[in-house]
Amino acid sequence: MKIVDMRLTPIAMADPPLLSSYGLHAPYALRTIVELVSEDGLTGAAETHGGAGPLADLERARPHVVGRDAFDLARLWSAIERDAVRPPVDEVPGEGGLAYPTQTYTLPGESRLDVPLRVYAALEVAALDLIGKSVGVPVYDLLGGRVRDEVPFSAYLFYKRAGGGGAGQDARADRWGEALDPGAIVEQAKRMIAMYGFQSVKLKGGVLPPEREIATMLALRDALGPTVPLRIDPNAAWTAPTAIQVGTALAGALEYLEDPTPGLDGMARVQRGLLDAGDDTPLASNTSVTSFADVPEAIRSGGVRVILSDHHYWGGLRAITHLGRLCATFGIGLSMHSNSHLGLSLLAMVHLAAATPELTFASDTHYPWQDGADEILVNGRVEFAGGAVRVPTGPGLGAELDGDALARGRERYERCGYRNRDDEAEMRRHVDPAWRRVVPRW
Amino acid sequence: MKIVDMRLTPIAMADPPLLSSYGLHAPYALRTIVELVSEDGLTGAAETHGGAGPLADLERARPHVVGRDAFDLARLWSAIERDAVRPPVDEVPGEGGLAYPTQTYTLPGESRLDVPLRVYAALEVAALDLIGKSVGVPVYDLLGGRVRDEVPFSAYLFYKRAGGGGAGQDARADRWGEALDPGAIVEQAKRMIAMYGFQSVKLKGGVLPPEREIATMLALRDALGPTVPLRIDPNAAWTAPTAIQVGTALAGALEYLEDPTPGLDGMARVQRGLLDAGDDTPLASNTSVTSFADVPEAIRSGGVRVILSDHHYWGGLRAITHLGRLCATFGIGLSMHSNSHLGLSLLAMVHLAAATPELTFASDTHYPWQDGADEILVNGRVEFAGGAVRVPTGPGLGAELDGDALARGRERYERCGYRNRDDEAEMRRHVDPAWRRVVPRW
Repeated sequence: MKIVDMRLTPIAMADPPLLSSYGLHAPYALRTIVELVSEDGLTGAAETHGGAGPLADLERARPHVVGRDAFDLARLWSAIERDAVRPPVDEVPGEGGLAYPTQTYTLPGESRLDVPLRVYAALEVAALDLIGKSVGVPVYDLLGGRVRDEVPFSAYLFYKRAGGGGAGQDARADRWGEALDPGAIVEQAKRMIAMYGFQSVKLKGGVLPPEREIATMLALRDALGPTVPLRIDPNAAWTAPTAIQVGTALAGALEYLEDPTPGLDGMARVQRGLLDAGDDTPLASNTSVTSFADVPEAIRSGGVRVILSDHHYWGGLRAITHLGRLCATFGIGLSMHSNSHLGLSLLAMVHLAAATPELTFASDTHYPWQDGADEILVNGRVEFAGGAVRVPTGPGLGAELDGDALARGRERYERCGYRNRDDEAEMRRHVDPAWRRVVPRW
Repeated sequence: MKIVDMRLTPIAMADPPLLSSYGLHAPYALRTIVELVSEDGLTGAAETHGGAGPLADLERARPHVVGRDAFDLARLWSAIERDAVRPPVDEVPGEGGLAYPTQTYTLPGESRLDVPLRVYAALEVAALDLIGKSVGVPVYDLLGGRVRDEVPFSAYLFYKRAGGGGAGQDARADRWGEALDPGAIVEQAKRMIAMYGFQSVKLKGGVLPPEREIATMLALRDALGPTVPLRIDPNAAWTAPTAIQVGTALAGALEYLEDPTPGLDGMARVQRGLLDAGDDTPLASNTSVTSFADVPEAIRSGGVRVILSDHHYWGGLRAITHLGRLCATFGIGLSMHSNSHLGLSLLAMVHLAAATPELTFASDTHYPWQDGADEILVNGRVEFAGGAVRVPTGPGLGAELDGDALARGRERYERCGYRNRDDEAEMRRHVDPAWRRVVPRW
């Protein structure tokens, strides 16, 4: 089944002013929609990182995609990895430019080194959707079959400023309000659980001083009870000693402690510190382990006991099924990371989770923070029940793109002016002109 | 695509009197052919271990197979692993009985602990053949696509007695003759290379005293030249000190040294001994590493630098693609083991190798020792050119079973009297009534 066309559509969607140690979410988050068209007129689609850099990276892969059989994925990867889609080394990066921000970002999925894996991943998902639609089977069956009928996700709480997502004609009312203290986060949790039924809860930390974030987690535990698994992820905002203090203060309250400090050495130091203090809370990571190359040292160091996978930058769905087996072999847990995303990414995550027996944790998702007005699927928002998404059993990913909604997303992209994600610049623009991303900060 | 029938056919094939540290190959080798029939009348097939034990194990899985969708493999594995096909613990094993030999066999693929993985593997291959035939794509495409157009194999030399394979009406002329010294092995190598074009060579050792096997390898190197990769595999017949002596004597002559001694501790001791002597020859194994559970300690110990995979007992084709990624992640090489087999197993190995980029060594195959009269494929023997098999590009595994040939294989099974593999008993029967398998022997 030959691929005869690749369509790339950059889109923007409204995003609320969420805070992290990296800065502030801009009013628009960017995504790229990849569509592969087969010679018999079928279309497979995938959603990936957005902005000018990822768009140009995918465009560079076009000669390797068009004319190739949709099943011929291993050689597609070889071609991309070998010579095709590394960004030119002399390309001038920079804020507002066409490529990547100048910062040495540890934002997973936004490193220039990830480019071949990210490009391939988006193409693989679109090809698997296309194959599934062509042969009439869901994507999970192309990965080896379904082990679960529904995929649980975790509530993803954020400290946030007030103010709606979007601007100009896309301005949206802020339905969530400011959340800058423990009480407001508890309210956010209760509301999100009421809306989606989530049965586990994650807080994006690294925003307030550690003692305030400890208080937030203890307030969540008090409010939600001891049976709701809790996680906090400060995006490496703490030094190892601070992380040990926070972990010790939260001993017994956390399902896992995610990326408390930068780097595998630091993570190992924190894990040893917690164990020495009698606290067996596992550390999880998606910043010190972002590819297979990081895995051996992560395991040897003992500093990562749960890997947060993300097919968007680990190299696709099959790569994560490999990672799952690897994690199980070494007794490492497997969870799943998310960026801001729409339903098409969510469905890829759902099919992957359905086909990955080792994925025993509820996955992350930013989906509740996105707005139905921005969804690009024919049937609108993907539904949650009991905090889980029912695995679609139709062909491919089980959804079709809404061409009009996609066109609106593209118009939004054209108008919004953003061409890359820069949470630091956004923080300077709206909060503090002198703000700098400092990791670790405390 | 529902599976409506599972057909199991035990077969026997003539096998020459090959020697190893385990004993002597019997005149017949046993295999089981699995056929899965879909509701629309298509058939997928696989070949696996033979004899009464594996046949009964597969039969026990029937309730989990018939009625299941062919894509629904992950849950098939769960069902098999959970409760279905472990041999009853009170089953009386024994030579000539219905189950497994009483020896604590380290013969890979013949351990009772492997049973669920072996049962699932055979069913997975047959299901993938069925799926491929149904959707019109080769099995390698179901695994992620082809990375090579031909799959290289290694010549597999054996010390052997004279005498043909088979007995009674299946008696076959011995086309190879006795080979019990270096000169005869060199002749065997030259002849096998002339017939098949092999570009690398493996000797099954552990049969003659180590100094004679060293002499054999040095004679091979002299005869074949320095560019032909050589391997020797004594099936763990040597103590660690002996293995270090052999390895040192063969320093620079081997591509890898396979299973010189039993167990991971011994392997690590040998690898360290060789490295201390300035010899960087890697050790390879398919006896101290036979499942994912062995992998972490194998890597930690440093005693296994190449894993010889075998989809028949590691749990199928997708499992080996996972193993490939794991090996690459940890810098471990991947090669492929074989038992005595016919063309159906060979084709499964070929599709797997085609879809496994990490498999960079020529694979083992016993295929040259089998006879065209026993082949069960419609087009007869699989052809080799330049020591490699061209990857079939037709649907599924790319072959059809010959019903008449299969029936002859079954008649041979009924007549031959063997119901399990017992190389030790065969050695006592034909060579030395007091012979015992002793590992390590030297």
